[in-house]
Amino acid sequence: MRDRDAERIGIRLHAEGLVRGNFGNISIREDQGFYIKRRNAYLDAPRELIFVPQEGAIPEEASRETIVHREIYRTTPYRAVVHAHPPHAIALSYISKEVRPQDCEGELLYPRIKVVEGVSGTHTLARTVAAALQNSPAVIVRGHGTFAAGASLDEAYVLTSAVEHACRILILLRQIKESG
Amino acid sequence: MRDRDAERIGIRLHAEGLVRGNFGNISIREDQGFYIKRRNAYLDAPRELIFVPQEGAIPEEASRETIVHREIYRTTPYRAVVHAHPPHAIALSYISKEVRPQDCEGELLYPRIKVVEGVSGTHTLARTVAAALQNSPAVIVRGHGTFAAGASLDEAYVLTSAVEHACRILILLRQIKESG
Amino acid sequence: MRDRDAERIGIRLHAEGLVRGNFGNISIREDQGFYIKRRNAYLDAPRELIFVPQEGAIPEEASRETIVHREIYRTTPYRAVVHAHPPHAIALSYISKEVRPQDCEGELLYPRIKVVEGVSGTHTLARTVAAALQNSPAVIVRGHGTFAAGASLDEAYVLTSAVEHACRILILLRQIKESG
Amino acid sequence: MRDRDAERIGIRLHAEGLVRGNFGNISIREDQGFYIKRRNAYLDAPRELIFVPQEGAIPEEASRETIVHREIYRTTPYRAVVHAHPPHAIALSYISKEVRPQDCEGELLYPRIKVVEGVSGTHTLARTVAAALQNSPAVIVRGHGTFAAGASLDEAYVLTSAVEHACRILILLRQIKESG
Repeated sequence: MRDRDAERIGIRLHAEGLVRGNFGNISIREDQGFYIKRRNAYLDAPRELIFVPQEGAIPEEASRETIVHREIYRTTPYRAVVHAHPPHAIALSYISKEVRPQDCEGELLYPRIKVVEGVSGTHTLARTVAAALQNSPAVIVRGHGTFAAGASLDEAYVLTSAVEHACRILILLRQIKESG
Repeated sequence: MRDRDAERIGIRLHAEGLVRGNFGNISIREDQGFYIKRRNAYLDAPRELIFVPQEGAIPEEASRETIVHREIYRTTPYRAVVHAHPPHAIALSYISKEVRPQDCEGELLYPRIKVVEGVSGTHTLARTVAAALQNSPAVIVRGHGTFAAGASLDEAYVLTSAVEHACRILILLRQIKESG
Repeated sequence: MRDRDAERIGIRLHAEGLVRGNFGNISIREDQGFYIKRRNAYLDAPRELIFVPQEGAIPEEASRETIVHREIYRTTPYRAVVHAHPPHAIALSYISKEVRPQDCEGELLYPRIKVVEGVSGTHTLARTVAAALQNSPAVIVRGHGTFAAGASLDEAYVLTSAVEHACRILILLRQIKESG
Repeated sequence: MRDRDAERIGIRLHAEGLVRGNFGNISIREDQGFYIKRRNAYLDAPRELIFVPQEGAIPEEASRETIVHREIYRTTPYRAVVHAHPPHAIALSYISKEVRPQDCEGELLYPRIKVVEGVSGTHTLARTVAAALQNSPAVIVRGHGTFAAGASLDEAYVLTSAVEHACRILILLRQIKESG
């Protein structure tokens, strides 16, 4: 069930262009730890998820960004996390410290989406992302991608999709206004 | 049959990028009411549609935008409604009160596509949308998305797809002209 | 076999965004006539093609653009025709009388792609398109779409795909140069 | 297995828009030669790959770009090669001699992606591409597309996908900055 859910959501993320290649990762909280995508696996055709305990050594086969997921589960009550690389959200992240959606779903879900900075794979970034998620269910890491968290994988995916939709609208709007 | 049609059209809407995540909804008129997508369901993988009577309480599981669909069925003879979030149509909606397609299908189907405003979930918006659909089978709600209506789900979907195609061409054209 | 080929190519055209909704059509030459997509059918989920004789009345169920296909078969030796609505090709068609690809496939296949004008559904447009295809296997009708012809459906589809690829590169290039 | 892998990767390349029509090709090294896509076959629906010996005549059914693949295998230890036509990478190739990704995956994988020039189908281009791949696993041929090489088809595909992602971000970023 857990593996089927992960594949179902991975297929959606890939179909919407929110991840490409074997990038991005997802995880689901369990007692004493969480299940996460394997390193190098494709989100849309994952092999079975791998269990990571909340404390102690991280299995080598686990996704490279496992420490971010672990920090999120340590400091928040979310049950699932989606990390994606949505191109419009990444592009906007270079030019501002927060994104303010103008579409009505974006405005409702996220009046402001925080943009944070940090070096991939570091504990500092893990803490920064987890801290940002305490105030909002999604955050953009500058030049890298989004982390969204929710009560379920479906919720974390829908939030990711909504962030990219909002950012795409914002970029189209800049292009239109400029050419007006 | 009804549920299969809904899924078939939902798959098309998602494949063309007219909806993302679990946004958008569709409905089909019946005697004394209509069937509509369930709240939070994915258009491309819906569970069975839920019946909403034309009068009286709206079931809680029904889509959040059910009141717009009900107002459309109350005031027009359409048999099906598609509500989508096409990004180019939404982007254009911020800068004008009507969209005038320049592609030949757009010109034929919709010499002018009205842009209306209103707060999501309100009866005022429901009335505004339904009123606009009395003169034209499609309307864009500013910053939100399209409502298209027709004699069948297929017709309402094709109209939605044509509106987004027209808006995409208009935006590309602005970009080209500007860079000329 | 003919119907399966038509569906296979229709699925490719839709997957690449070369047609949306139920727009676009394809045909395959036969003795004394040709088979063409039915009116309102989806290219990617067509019902069986319908036979149109080279002379005489056109069946009502045949695609709205049947007269263009008939004129092409009357005046050229092509065996198959694909009519699509590729957005970048349409956008470029508004600003020039011919498109000159800069990508290497485009340069090889089409040093110049002619842009013609005409009212959809008229015999004048049918003659204009057929005449243009005598010198080049593809042509763009301003504000409308492409007609490509070849020895097979596969060839006509690949040409269509190459035209849109070339036009997309040209538009991206204009956007990049301008922002340089 | 080899043919199934080729189809699996071809489907991914097509789904991500890295190839269109029947363009692009892939190969896998073997003892004394390599297997490559057949000429005119679709990457996402290839017939079985064809064997090309490392020395001597090239079978006629082999992909038109077989000499590039052969030169890569002759001069490097890579086990697989992917040649694609990613539109954003091609567009950027016109305006610079190297692409410098700004997204964090791009920066890690390719601080600089070289852009080379050459006429398709020539031995000169084959040598230029193979030489560039000695210093970096991916290269862009101006106005044409990418060659990426790796220890496996999966690796060469993921690199291709990452190059296009980086180029897409760069183009979006130029558009945003300009409109700021």
